[in-house]
Amino acid sequence: MEEKNFVVGVDVGGQTTKIGVVDTRGEVLTQSVIRTDTYGTDAEAYVSALADAIIKVIDAAGKKDEIRGVGVGAPNGNYYTGTIAFAPNLAWAANGSIEFSKMLSEKLGGIPVSLTNDANAAAVGEMAYGVARGMKNFIMITLGTGVGSGIVINGQVVYGHDGFAGELGHTCVVRNNGRTCGCGKQGCLEAYCSAIGVAKTAHEWLEAGDEPSKLRECDTISSKDVYDAAKEGDALALRVFEYTGTLLGRQFADFVAFSAPEAIVLFGGLARAKEFLYDPIMNAMNENLLPIWKGKVKILFSSLKESDAAILGASALAWEL
Amino acid sequence: MEEKNFVVGVDVGGQTTKIGVVDTRGEVLTQSVIRTDTYGTDAEAYVSALADAIIKVIDAAGKKDEIRGVGVGAPNGNYYTGTIAFAPNLAWAANGSIEFSKMLSEKLGGIPVSLTNDANAAAVGEMAYGVARGMKNFIMITLGTGVGSGIVINGQVVYGHDGFAGELGHTCVVRNNGRTCGCGKQGCLEAYCSAIGVAKTAHEWLEAGDEPSKLRECDTISSKDVYDAAKEGDALALRVFEYTGTLLGRQFADFVAFSAPEAIVLFGGLARAKEFLYDPIMNAMNENLLPIWKGKVKILFSSLKESDAAILGASALAWEL
Repeated sequence: MEEKNFVVGVDVGGQTTKIGVVDTRGEVLTQSVIRTDTYGTDAEAYVSALADAIIKVIDAAGKKDEIRGVGVGAPNGNYYTGTIAFAPNLAWAANGSIEFSKMLSEKLGGIPVSLTNDANAAAVGEMAYGVARGMKNFIMITLGTGVGSGIVINGQVVYGHDGFAGELGHTCVVRNNGRTCGCGKQGCLEAYCSAIGVAKTAHEWLEAGDEPSKLRECDTISSKDVYDAAKEGDALALRVFEYTGTLLGRQFADFVAFSAPEAIVLFGGLARAKEFLYDPIMNAMNENLLPIWKGKVKILFSSLKESDAAILGASALAWEL
Repeated sequence: MEEKNFVVGVDVGGQTTKIGVVDTRGEVLTQSVIRTDTYGTDAEAYVSALADAIIKVIDAAGKKDEIRGVGVGAPNGNYYTGTIAFAPNLAWAANGSIEFSKMLSEKLGGIPVSLTNDANAAAVGEMAYGVARGMKNFIMITLGTGVGSGIVINGQVVYGHDGFAGELGHTCVVRNNGRTCGCGKQGCLEAYCSAIGVAKTAHEWLEAGDEPSKLRECDTISSKDVYDAAKEGDALALRVFEYTGTLLGRQFADFVAFSAPEAIVLFGGLARAKEFLYDPIMNAMNENLLPIWKGKVKILFSSLKESDAAILGASALAWEL
């Protein structure tokens, strides 16, 4: 029997799906991209297109019979059931539950498929190839359109009783009169500390006064605009990041009280604002930690190349198959 | 070699230490109690007295060479290092770090000793003998003088990177102008939802107005007084429990977002107020949960006999030795 020393990593995003063949050292041999959002509500059509693309990328790498499995990271992907359910950003899985792993494995002639949500995949990738290498206890926080999380305890991703553990973006950071979050609740971390949350904070603060700011020139403000303005020394933009980092740090202190991690690892678009987020996060976290942890918990920023990270994270899942 | 089918459980409390010999079915064969608080800062003297008491209770059970190990639950007990450090309620371990497991094992002629904090021990006991039997994912919350927690994920107690995980009593429940907690931080769950916190809430509310209440007759109010008054229908006392339960429920929702447990198990003196706490906890928790968890997470109250529970929990640790 031939040894199966390669895996496929698949990162399902709202707009595009990235696919790559990965070797044991985390080298991406071949990769490709398909659209995620051109299949309407037809899950069958999307999964078929994905299977075709996976077969092509395996052929391109010349590893037809050497694939151990396919690891998939997708919003609301459930590790236990292999389903994607009620994922608002995936039209074909927005209103029900798709038996994703089973469908994909069948279309791939039985190659096993392992599924988890995108933040858990990122955590696995960081542990296998990134700044969390060698760590057995850390928390991955993904700061993108939303705020996701992947929690690693004793070297294992925490899936919980039902496979949905690690929704730290929906813990409460502002208890009274908090912003309404996309999930319907009020005051969630995601409503403040996602890319959308940062833009919203800037927008609200501009509305609330007449302090001069470069951001007044923008038609609609994005988190990128706030970042660029902060880079140029814009006082309001700088305060937006300080506020965002402070909220993150406070919440991180509570996460530390739960699982006593060695580090919290930040990943995603907003994590690029490291220079503006690091100090306020550290200060607020340490202010709110019990004495036993003050000054001892690291805040790290993902070192993985953004284009590879998602594929690597998902692929790392497949090694366990 | 003789089979070792018995363990010793030791529960170290601030005032007394309970010791029992336990069989594989969780039956306490013999038990005894020694004082914890009469040794001043002399850890050596306390551990010697404890070892003597353990030997006596083993002899009384007639199991001299059949003891697999000793499991100990103690405030600030560290599973990894076997030390008790900076435990404010234990004079002999308040100002430094005691190599507890090593000292005790030596005095017992080499019988292995396993140590953890009291809330983790309670969680292990509940999983082995109580309402959490068969559960692999649950959170134990101990509502006593303080608020402790033991977190079980995948059937294992979470110790974290340093052995100190599970300090949920020190997560923040009131962000602004919160009460100062015994730990020095502001707004901790423990400052509101412990026995002391409940008494304090009653006291504050009595001071703030002139609403009639049976509690006005008390010299100093204890949580027991509030419970008794609530039993008699005292409106203010009932509202104190509703408030306490609401704060617990809110916080529990965030804990669920972390580890997606099957249940949260309540234990300790204050948990006896089940009739007043259950509804407000459930309502506040479900209001603050993501839709995927609403109505699905159980709130359970420990079923273990209080006198045995602490010993059983600690003893369960020793089976892993």
